[in-house]
This record gives sequence, C-alpha cells and structure tokens, in this order.
Amino acid sequence: MSAAAFFRHGKKIVAIGRNYAEHVKELNNALPQEPFFFLKPTTSYISNEGYVEIPRGVIAHHEVELGLVIGKRGRDIAQKDAEGHIAGYALAVDMTARNMQDAVKKKGLPWSAAKGFDTFTPVGSFIDKSLVSDPHKLALSLKIDGTTKQDGTTADMIFKIPRIIEHISSIMTLEEGDLVLTGTPSGVGPLSPGETVECELLDTVSGKQLSSLKFY
Amino acid sequence: MSAAAFFRHGKKIVAIGRNYAEHVKELNNALPQEPFFFLKPTTSYISNEGYVEIPRGVIAHHEVELGLVIGKRGRDIAQKDAEGHIAGYALAVDMTARNMQDAVKKKGLPWSAAKGFDTFTPVGSFIDKSLVSDPHKLALSLKIDGTTKQDGTTADMIFKIPRIIEHISSIMTLEEGDLVLTGTPSGVGPLSPGETVECELLDTVSGKQLSSLKFY
Ligand SMILES: [Mg+2]
Ligand SMILES: [Mg+2]
Ligand SMILES: [Mg+2]
Repeated sequence: MSAAAFFRHGKKIVAIGRNYAEHVKELNNALPQEPFFFLKPTTSYISNEGYVEIPRGVIAHHEVELGLVIGKRGRDIAQKDAEGHIAGYALAVDMTARNMQDAVKKKGLPWSAAKGFDTFTPVGSFIDKSLVSDPHKLALSLKIDGTTKQDGTTADMIFKIPRIIEHISSIMTLEEGDLVLTGTPSGVGPLSPGETVECELLDTVSGKQLSSLKFY
Repeated sequence: MSAAAFFRHGKKIVAIGRNYAEHVKELNNALPQEPFFFLKPTTSYISNEGYVEIPRGVIAHHEVELGLVIGKRGRDIAQKDAEGHIAGYALAVDMTARNMQDAVKKKGLPWSAAKGFDTFTPVGSFIDKSLVSDPHKLALSLKIDGTTKQDGTTADMIFKIPRIIEHISSIMTLEEGDLVLTGTPSGVGPLSPGETVECELLDTVSGKQLSSLKFY
C-alpha cells in the first residue's frame, strides 16, 4: 500500500486527547503531564461530502484536528527520527459522543464506543509532506452553516508532533497507513442533523490552503 | 483476504469487558447492564511460541478468551444473523497492564495504552467454525509453569455471542478479519518474565482439543 491510500488500507487511528490548553479548559479537564491517546476504528472514516450519522440520544461534538499519516513502520521512534515516519498529513474531525464519553469517564470505562461510531471520523485528502512548510504553523478552522466555531493553530499543541510519535510508538508499533490525530483546539460543540460543516487547513507560512473538508 | 488470515490482514480487535460473573467479582467491578468493549491494535498480536514483552513497571495480567473471527462485513447485525458473520474462532489472551488500567480507570482516561502494548495479544491458529460443536460449550484454560490459573467454560458468558455481535455492530461495522474477544473467566493474575504460559481450548461436546497456545 502507499500512505496516500490510508483511508482504504490503514489499520488504525490513534488519537491524542487534551493537546490544546484552551480546549482542556473548556471541558474542565486536567492538563496532562504526558500525552495520552485512544484508538478509533478505521470503519469510522467518511470522506469529503459525506454524512455523519448521529445515533438517537447522542450529543455529537465536532473536534477539528491535524492528522499525521504514517509512511514508515516503527516502534520506539526517537523524537529526532519522527519526521521520517510521517508521509503526509490530513485534515480530520474527531467526532465524539460527548454525553456517552462523560458517562463512561465517570465509570472508568473505555472511550471506544463514544469515539468509534461509523462516520465519526470525517477526513480530507492525503497531503504530501512536501507541500507543508511547517506542521506546527498550520491554521485549523471549522464552521457550521457558515459560522466559525473552531479557529486554532497547530503552534498551540501542548505536546509537539515528535513527542506524540515518540510516546505512541513507545507502546505500539506505528504502521504505514495509520493516522495519528493530534488533538483539537477550543470551540468544540454539538453538531445537529441538517447542519453543514466546513473545515479548512491553511499553511500560515506560504498562505496556501492545504485542504478543505465538508460534511453534513 | 480470507478470514483465516486475520492475524496478518485483520484491521481491528474488539474486546468485551466483564463478561464472566466470577471475573467481575474478583476485580471488584460492577456487573454490566449491557455489553461494553474496548479496541486493541492488531500490532499487539503474537503467535504461538511467541514472547510477551512486559515493560518495566508494568504488572501484566493474563486473560484467556475465546476469539470470534469475523468472516463477513456487517453493521446492525441482528442476533439471529450473527452466526453467519462468524467464520471461525481463535484461542487468545488479552494481556492487560493492570496497574496502568487501574490508574486510568480512576482518572476516567482511555484503556488503549493499558491494553494495547505490542505483544499483548497472543493468539492461536484459526479454527474453522465447522470444527466447533457449540461455541457456548467450550472449556478455556490457562496454566503458568504447569499450574492451572484459569479454567472456565464459555457457557458462563453473561452476554452470549449473538448479543455481543449485535451490540458491537450497532456502533461500528465489523469487517472480515476482525477479531472479537468475548471476555475472560476468573483466575486472572500477573505473568512474570521467564514464566511459560500454556492455554487450551476444548470442545466439551466432542471432547476434542480445538487449539493450544503457548507463550513466554
Ligand atoms: Mg479506550
Ligand atoms: Mg479529539
Ligand atoms: Mg479481557
């Protein structure tokens, strides 16, 4: 497989939680001392112009995030080598059943269902890393029906990309086609059926739009 | 791919928690009102005669389990149709970093790291379902250095296989090659470096051994 085919052939999605200070505050969570992550199944992917299915009784929050597409298998990857394991990037949304997540957090149960519904990971096209000036200088935004809800910069990540890759790969092997979600800036909130979501990823060095992602 | 190649080509492992009453008691957990599950990455697989790597500071518990190998993709699978989505079975061990799991449960954090280390899912060969008289009449056992630690029967599952398949697939699509772990009977405990683990799966109707699995 090629990393560009991650949507079809990738095996896992590893998502970092609480990686932007303003978002940690808005959910009244504690600032993490080290990165932590959860898994999402690749059956949760939908592509551009897709439809998110919100099950009855679920409050589904949008979390716009920068995705790292893994290009080279590795375990115990040192921070200095992390960049060599990344083939490119993707604009993604980590949809979250917030009311289910709140309930399982209280009970000490896994997050897998709250994060793992089919259609809960809208994702844009593969962006080859040669097109990106600096992955820590990207603007990430999300609008609902034209109103901006999230507008952040990857410069604000608490744990930077090399640290994230080092941490995850100290526990599990990263494989070609895996997607790593790097956390969401503040402004998360509910999405309702019938609303249109538009996300954008902008290279703030070159001023170029790297990706856009629309879903319903 | 064929389901028999799940070890190499499968995308996800979905593991049910607390599905045997005696095991729920031994960990002082609450009996679940409905099934719940967590995800393990397929990078955690090791095959027969493999080595489990226990990271420094981790107390790694063995949990011997019946695995269901999915043979046919499905979403919202009705209980009456569940059997048609199962290609076969596998004897598996859900290794668990118990001290890490206890810590994240208290904080309401995901279980993914505690369950997801490389080598934390030893698994035996694919068993075609035609070889199994009744998946709810299997004996599951685990010995450490010749001493029996777990000795249960799949008859004691709280949630039976059709209910498990119905529940998981109400949230996420099950795909060919996915492995579903159905929970562990009582007797879980720590594994230390240098110890040898031997597991067995026995058909109690025919009296035949369906699988054995050894690891270190
Ligand atoms: Mg989890
Ligand atoms: Mg997120
Ligand atoms: Mg288990």
